Amino acid sequence: MTSTTDQSHLDAFYADVAAYDLQPLWTQTSDLLPPSPCPSAVPWLWRWETLRALVERASRLVPIERGGERRVLALANPGLHGLPYATPTLWGAMQIVGPGESAPAHRHTAAAIRFVLEGEGLWTTVDGDACEMRTGDLVLTPSWAFHDHTNHGSVPMVWFDGLDLPLVKALDAVFFEPYKDRLQPVEAKNASESRVAGRALLARGTQVGHDGSPLLVYRWPETDRALDALLAQDGGTVASIEFTNPTTGGPVLPTIGCAMHRLRSTTVTTPWRKTGSSVFVVHRGSGVTVAGSAVLRWSRGDMFVVPSWCPTYHASLEDSDLFELSDEPVLRALRLYREEAVPDARDAAELWSSAVSG
Amino acid sequence: MTSTTDQSHLDAFYADVAAYDLQPLWTQTSDLLPPSPCPSAVPWLWRWETLRALVERASRLVPIERGGERRVLALANPGLHGLPYATPTLWGAMQIVGPGESAPAHRHTAAAIRFVLEGEGLWTTVDGDACEMRTGDLVLTPSWAFHDHTNHGSVPMVWFDGLDLPLVKALDAVFFEPYKDRLQPVEAKNASESRVAGRALLARGTQVGHDGSPLLVYRWPETDRALDALLAQDGGTVASIEFTNPTTGGPVLPTIGCAMHRLRSTTVTTPWRKTGSSVFVVHRGSGVTVAGSAVLRWSRGDMFVVPSWCPTYHASLEDSDLFELSDEPVLRALRLYREEAVPDARDAAELWSSAVSG
Amino acid sequence: MTSTTDQSHLDAFYADVAAYDLQPLWTQTSDLLPPSPCPSAVPWLWRWETLRALVERASRLVPIERGGERRVLALANPGLHGLPYATPTLWGAMQIVGPGESAPAHRHTAAAIRFVLEGEGLWTTVDGDACEMRTGDLVLTPSWAFHDHTNHGSVPMVWFDGLDLPLVKALDAVFFEPYKDRLQPVEAKNASESRVAGRALLARGTQVGHDGSPLLVYRWPETDRALDALLAQDGGTVASIEFTNPTTGGPVLPTIGCAMHRLRSTTVTTPWRKTGSSVFVVHRGSGVTVAGSAVLRWSRGDMFVVPSWCPTYHASLEDSDLFELSDEPVLRALRLYREEAVPDARDAAELWSSAVSG
Amino acid sequence: MTSTTDQSHLDAFYADVAAYDLQPLWTQTSDLLPPSPCPSAVPWLWRWETLRALVERASRLVPIERGGERRVLALANPGLHGLPYATPTLWGAMQIVGPGESAPAHRHTAAAIRFVLEGEGLWTTVDGDACEMRTGDLVLTPSWAFHDHTNHGSVPMVWFDGLDLPLVKALDAVFFEPYKDRLQPVEAKNASESRVAGRALLARGTQVGHDGSPLLVYRWPETDRALDALLAQDGGTVASIEFTNPTTGGPVLPTIGCAMHRLRSTTVTTPWRKTGSSVFVVHRGSGVTVAGSAVLRWSRGDMFVVPSWCPTYHASLEDSDLFELSDEPVLRALRLYREEAVPDARDAAELWSSAVSG
Repeated sequence: MTSTTDQSHLDAFYADVAAYDLQPLWTQTSDLLPPSPCPSAVPWLWRWETLRALVERASRLVPIERGGERRVLALANPGLHGLPYATPTLWGAMQIVGPGESAPAHRHTAAAIRFVLEGEGLWTTVDGDACEMRTGDLVLTPSWAFHDHTNHGSVPMVWFDGLDLPLVKALDAVFFEPYKDRLQPVEAKNASESRVAGRALLARGTQVGHDGSPLLVYRWPETDRALDALLAQDGGTVASIEFTNPTTGGPVLPTIGCAMHRLRSTTVTTPWRKTGSSVFVVHRGSGVTVAGSAVLRWSRGDMFVVPSWCPTYHASLEDSDLFELSDEPVLRALRLYREEAVPDARDAAELWSSAVSG
Repeated sequence: MTSTTDQSHLDAFYADVAAYDLQPLWTQTSDLLPPSPCPSAVPWLWRWETLRALVERASRLVPIERGGERRVLALANPGLHGLPYATPTLWGAMQIVGPGESAPAHRHTAAAIRFVLEGEGLWTTVDGDACEMRTGDLVLTPSWAFHDHTNHGSVPMVWFDGLDLPLVKALDAVFFEPYKDRLQPVEAKNASESRVAGRALLARGTQVGHDGSPLLVYRWPETDRALDALLAQDGGTVASIEFTNPTTGGPVLPTIGCAMHRLRSTTVTTPWRKTGSSVFVVHRGSGVTVAGSAVLRWSRGDMFVVPSWCPTYHASLEDSDLFELSDEPVLRALRLYREEAVPDARDAAELWSSAVSG
Repeated sequence: MTSTTDQSHLDAFYADVAAYDLQPLWTQTSDLLPPSPCPSAVPWLWRWETLRALVERASRLVPIERGGERRVLALANPGLHGLPYATPTLWGAMQIVGPGESAPAHRHTAAAIRFVLEGEGLWTTVDGDACEMRTGDLVLTPSWAFHDHTNHGSVPMVWFDGLDLPLVKALDAVFFEPYKDRLQPVEAKNASESRVAGRALLARGTQVGHDGSPLLVYRWPETDRALDALLAQDGGTVASIEFTNPTTGGPVLPTIGCAMHRLRSTTVTTPWRKTGSSVFVVHRGSGVTVAGSAVLRWSRGDMFVVPSWCPTYHASLEDSDLFELSDEPVLRALRLYREEAVPDARDAAELWSSAVSG
Repeated sequence: MTSTTDQSHLDAFYADVAAYDLQPLWTQTSDLLPPSPCPSAVPWLWRWETLRALVERASRLVPIERGGERRVLALANPGLHGLPYATPTLWGAMQIVGPGESAPAHRHTAAAIRFVLEGEGLWTTVDGDACEMRTGDLVLTPSWAFHDHTNHGSVPMVWFDGLDLPLVKALDAVFFEPYKDRLQPVEAKNASESRVAGRALLARGTQVGHDGSPLLVYRWPETDRALDALLAQDGGTVASIEFTNPTTGGPVLPTIGCAMHRLRSTTVTTPWRKTGSSVFVVHRGSGVTVAGSAVLRWSRGDMFVVPSWCPTYHASLEDSDLFELSDEPVLRALRLYREEAVPDARDAAELWSSAVSG
């Protein structure tokens, strides 16, 4: 028991501590050092219908102009206090460029990936290399590479944007520079694909290193075949492919990992958790993801978020493909990566049975 | 000019966007993607007299107990909205352990370093290896290593604590575990120093890798001699030593870099800036640091913070030693590190001359 | 001038030096330390007709048995004093396995690659993974992997074997072990191709590292497309592809590099030299290679050797593909790799013009 | 059983094979692929008295001149067919430079280390950095670094030279270049020691990488203290220290590993074998090394060789220090390193008991 005198001494002490821009640890140890991660981000899902309709309205209402730069709607995780971030480290968003439109050339230290949801005829130019984008393709924009997008087609082009922007911002390392003109000159077309021209084949002299993959586009047909081959080989119902930097075997970008998961119909994955957060984009199929106490029902084009260390499993209602964007490379590089099968998955299983019957 | 009708459409659109947990990029592009980093942390200094007096009061008022774990006062950067963080990635603090006291054994994924400011007779045990701590020593506590502190001496022991806690928390990767007993058994004394037993000499079989240095203590006399040797060799007035992991040549810990800078009296360093933030502890001497528009006058025991990309130079009024804690390894690992001499240092020079005459 | 007395002292001295198993450096400095490499291996070519006819004869005369292990004829460089080596570091050979035959399972620390010259229906099993071999395929046998070959087809199968055996032998690091049975059980078919299932796509959990590529087979159609794509992209007449370990971007094996060079008809490559040696196998076309003072005329199926630092260029008489096996990874790993365009290529050009007119 | 006709066909076949510069594998499989390494190099020892007397005679008889370059007597392993090599990969030798003498500046791609046996007052200049050499010091000459030696003292300087010359020669990668003058200008004195100025302390900006250690001299007093500290810590009777490149934790040079072993009096080490070869130099004490079936009795200044995979143990008759030069980094880089305690050490133990009683 603290006496009144003691308490008044303590009160005076804490007041002085605060006055000098200091804070005691001992009064907040359990908040600062919890037994395991307590993310403020929450599992959350955004529906394709909503997203698609809203970018369509944006298309009519908002031009793409220098200054605003991009017609993009960002996923704002309700747990993140109003920030336009999907998770504490990842930016997830939907972008639309209409026929004949272009998005001006610029570069930034935040790195980006695109996963194409709809359309054809758009080319993104990355440091002079014009890359055609088609549905299901994964396209990279490494840190500090100039990039612009031009829709040469006759339909709107819609894609998912994933960036490490929240992380780069937290590290106070954002630099941005507009290109001197609206668009870069095109020096080559799909050149990165000819330098990384097959399975483990590199053009002699291809630049190697951990700054980012020299391959800028990962085509859907190849991903599709890879997933089928893996399922056929293993005779299983789940296959997971990592998109890699072919010169290191590591992630496509230093801060961003990309994967594609294929689930045969009515497959339930092992409950699992890992440090770091993910944004999923449903490329095909439908199902349910149980993430902690959240039950997220998804179908094509939906996007959802799983926070760090959240026990998670996916259950497919039909053949499904889930694209995953994650900050796993960051956790690994800083030696903070952990993963495990969730020790007791009974709660998860119960949630699932209530989910499918719900 | 937007017509009233258009504006009402826009208003409705933005309302819908917000209702669906989305945010437009184009209205906040310049905030999210500034030309160069705009840290909210500010350059700031905490005085030794203040810190020393407050930990002394804490010593009398607050016992070291399980739950609170440590008697620590954390630097709370005024720009960081009330968080107990020195910078967005770094925790800086002062800790005191009185004669006969001990701080209970625990471990956490946040990694720590100690830089000893005052006292003798305290031993910190890191995974069974008891390390004696003396003034000027740098002592490591790698991620997830059990550690406790016991003061066997007759005077209070005071040191600077540096951790990557804000970063690990931002990544939602904090794990914490108390040791089953108050203190670990001591299995060896200063064992890490006999395995890394000299300049580039490793005991055969020493564990190598990037998880953290196998050397846990960097003794002040050796640091002192190294700085003198470097000054003597180069004939200069500034010398900078990096503390390294001798099995990689890299930083002492994956997320934390440590350096010591020696400035001969009345030396002014080149104005410089780099991505990532630093906490400085004045080990010896006095001087002024100009960081952006802030002028920080320092003397022995003071601690100060320099945010990311902030043009900075130091000017010594007497022979001085500055210990620096930084997140440079994080920026480097994620390929976000940049540094440069500040292009136009005239303003800095003027600030300095007004500072010394002030 | 040395006096008679001096000379007799010297003679006595040199006799004593030799008697004690010593040798003076100063009498042989220029041999031991020449200005640039002086290989004893010579540029040399072996003809397909010869090789094919001889392995055919071997097929009739020599069974494949435990003890002899393989029906292989090794290239014996005339400069290498009767050793069965193509170069000081590389073994090159032709192997034949007839219909219904098998070569018994064993493993060795020397690493191997196969480049298929003729036939179909043979499967090589590498640590349980049965890999089908077809003309133009590159197939790996990493160090210490059990392997056996079985011809399930109706025609003989003929391929080029490349090994690092001379190097491993020079390092006194050859280990060899027969498998307990004649053949290993087949656990999977072409499994490595489903784990490395496309351009920079890895099955999650694929083993990474520098011990050797997880991809065991590089299929000819993919190589062929890659070379065409590269030529189309660059608009040139020469394209070079490196076969890589997709988990490192480095060589297929720690000691062995493989490449394929495509030359459009009547193309002459830049005269070049590099440290380390190569064995070339002509996969398609015909032409001339000028290596030092040697002029090697080649057509399909021929094999030829280029020693270290030998100025070399290739000239195609028709569209040609040259497979290259080299020890470049060894030179690189030991920091002894050098390469350069040959400073004065006039002699080479003259050699070439005399070659084509010859 | 082979019929006469068959045999004549075989004879004709083998004659044709040989005529076309080919060799069958099957007739020599067991020689080329033995179960475990069969070095031709043998365990061998050279006595200090012999070596010292012979270099003394060389000193009187042979000047140090451009062309001969160095007054060096090389260990010629009797198993190596008259080559001046200690092992298939390592050159070991004794060098002497008398008072007032100098050895001219040159460089070569073969890398070198010196281990000083006797004398003082000699400086070796390595790329402009003059390094003082004292008894017990280890001094590096990285590949392609200009170096010369000048004896400013009053007594002869004698040291052990270790090089990777046999390896570099086997790889046909020897380049040699004399410096334009007899000696290089001295730009700094012992500069490498001030940049690597203590235990895991690097001057900021020190060049890092695997080309070789930035520290050129490892001083005996520091080695001596390190060995004592390690013995004191572990309470054992054997301590082994690796000399390292402090920017990588790896070997001092890409191809050369250096270690020092301290054995307390009457200590017997565990019988051991490893791939790759070593040259030992006895720095202090006396004892016996049993290497395979060879029993090598040694005392101060003796040098001896242990071939690859040769079961080996050392037994000290008094407190002893053994310096070891090895090619272990080569075996490790090429993934060919293996080591193990010798499974059945009884033979070794018997050899030893007969050795000490002999």
